[in-house]
Amino acid sequence: MQTREFFVSAPGKVILHGEHSVVHGKVALAVSLNLRTYLRLQSTSSGEVCINLPNIDTFLSWEITALQPLLAGCKEQDDLKELDADLLKRLREFTGISDDSIDTRSMAVLAFLYMYLTVFAESLASITVSVWSELPTGAGLGSSAAYNVCLSAALLSARGTISSPLTPQQESARWSKEEMELINRWAFMGEKIIHGNPSGVDNAVGTWGGFLRYHAGNITPLSWVPILRILLTNTKVPRSTKVLVSGVKDKINKFPSIMNPVLESVSAVSCTCEQTLTEMAAHRPSAEHYDILEELIDINQHHLNVMGVGHSSLDTLCRVTLARGLHSKLTGAGGGGCGITLLRPVSVRMASCRLHDCLA
Amino acid sequence: MQTREFFVSAPGKVILHGEHSVVHGKVALAVSLNLRTYLRLQSTSSGEVCINLPNIDTFLSWEITALQPLLAGCKEQDDLKELDADLLKRLREFTGISDDSIDTRSMAVLAFLYMYLTVFAESLASITVSVWSELPTGAGLGSSAAYNVCLSAALLSARGTISSPLTPQQESARWSKEEMELINRWAFMGEKIIHGNPSGVDNAVGTWGGFLRYHAGNITPLSWVPILRILLTNTKVPRSTKVLVSGVKDKINKFPSIMNPVLESVSAVSCTCEQTLTEMAAHRPSAEHYDILEELIDINQHHLNVMGVGHSSLDTLCRVTLARGLHSKLTGAGGGGCGITLLRPVSVRMASCRLHDCLA
Repeated sequence: MQTREFFVSAPGKVILHGEHSVVHGKVALAVSLNLRTYLRLQSTSSGEVCINLPNIDTFLSWEITALQPLLAGCKEQDDLKELDADLLKRLREFTGISDDSIDTRSMAVLAFLYMYLTVFAESLASITVSVWSELPTGAGLGSSAAYNVCLSAALLSARGTISSPLTPQQESARWSKEEMELINRWAFMGEKIIHGNPSGVDNAVGTWGGFLRYHAGNITPLSWVPILRILLTNTKVPRSTKVLVSGVKDKINKFPSIMNPVLESVSAVSCTCEQTLTEMAAHRPSAEHYDILEELIDINQHHLNVMGVGHSSLDTLCRVTLARGLHSKLTGAGGGGCGITLLRPVSVRMASCRLHDCLA
Repeated sequence: MQTREFFVSAPGKVILHGEHSVVHGKVALAVSLNLRTYLRLQSTSSGEVCINLPNIDTFLSWEITALQPLLAGCKEQDDLKELDADLLKRLREFTGISDDSIDTRSMAVLAFLYMYLTVFAESLASITVSVWSELPTGAGLGSSAAYNVCLSAALLSARGTISSPLTPQQESARWSKEEMELINRWAFMGEKIIHGNPSGVDNAVGTWGGFLRYHAGNITPLSWVPILRILLTNTKVPRSTKVLVSGVKDKINKFPSIMNPVLESVSAVSCTCEQTLTEMAAHRPSAEHYDILEELIDINQHHLNVMGVGHSSLDTLCRVTLARGLHSKLTGAGGGGCGITLLRPVSVRMASCRLHDCLA
């Protein structure tokens, strides 16, 4: 371990189309935000591992010698297919975080310690990791994924598994495809610890940035897409993703002949949106392209209301923005949370993928 | 012609589910209202035929001898499959109503004269017909159909083609099935004159009352259904049914993969509603039945918004009623017009078909 100090950062995400229906095997489109999470890793000689999470008022440290016994019996974790349930159980006991605990601090600490121990299993390093973010937590903007991607990239770099990340002079990271995939796989482990059964979309957007298409477990980056100006509104209405997802499932079971066509229609909205974005990238984005994007936003917002995941605060957002000619929809789980409003650009810039919006 | 004077009346209708999608071959459910149109027919010896329509400030009369030449070359109209286009053309010339005229008065006069001339083709009778209504015109409540059903029943009775309608002492008309079908077929002719290409639902509800299921040209009465208490709100926002229908068609052509599943879903809403109403009639209507009816109303209102036939006045109706725990949707063409709000009964009464809401 040569590096004394380095920084990584990863973007948050919004779901453009396909939230909820993605759970039922339909296409979803996710896009990275220019709101990011930043990580600083310092190698120290204190014999301690420290995590500082100022956003959630968490500053913890452990003696390496106290952590070492937790690794007893751990297998090499290079395939990264499954979480090491035994290690996770020992970690919960060690930290006193119960099985049913889901608060942000506990989950962040568990994910960090798990990733630290498994990456440095051969020789635990003395390091201090500080993470801060422009992303609110629990708002469906992929803050946990950005956190896990940063952790994964930083720890793998510090261990030397992947090359060193950028220095302050470099604009963006230059990891190879294989290194990026490894970062994403480790980040997914962190997501599993925090969310139980995540789709993998959030960590993929955090790693690669830009637009991603997600369908039945397959993630495809859209290589040429226009930059969209999106107004993000946080209703700050709290909600439980788990309850909302389960409500949609119940409604599908209750009214299959009514709800299954709605999921089909949402999937077609995602595909039509993808096609329109591709056309916008291939040609100059036109008012007609924006007309279509706006129509798709309106249609999907109505569909999400049919699924029962709307909220009066989101209705207000749609009404207020529409009065100004703008089109909005909820993004993510709904029932409150965040809404997105598409803004038509004064002049439309193009990018294959904004480098400053991917893992850097 | 024996009758000196008699009265008939027919109800208006609302579409519970399936407006617009019915145009594309899907199931619709229509239900009669306790708002009615009334007709008084008097046989006179003035040698004139008079029509009085106080609601639309129309009072006209014609010498029978002036009308007689219009019948030259007319064929017997007993099959009632097609309008006699030549007669209609001569009527337009006679009355000075141009081909592109669609105002309520002109259409009411054309329908009356056409029906009068074809029913009494053998010997034009000297009569005065007065029609008044509780139904607003152009609000999607089937006012033209109620008018045409009244005209058809009264003229056919006066001519002796069907039996005489009720006297003031009788509670309701007692026409045979065949007579009712004949009334409905003639009323449909009037609807064709007024609307060009009507579905036939409105005149069927005006004739038979109660609940009707309409699918691909087939009209099926639902024999056992509960009475629903429906709050009717007229937004008084004017709109063109033709423009709205054409807008939906354009949207289906533009986004077939998105819109066709929506039509499927609306059709399933109609079928689920029909099934629920049938269960409510077979068992005692429960809170759970009303829960389902309310959910279906919400879903369909969102679908109609997807079709682009919503309106801010209808959104307001939905929002205001929902704040009081009530569920609303537009009915008919949308874009303004009327909305319906389902009211939960204090005690639910049952009826096979409310006699006072069918043709009487």
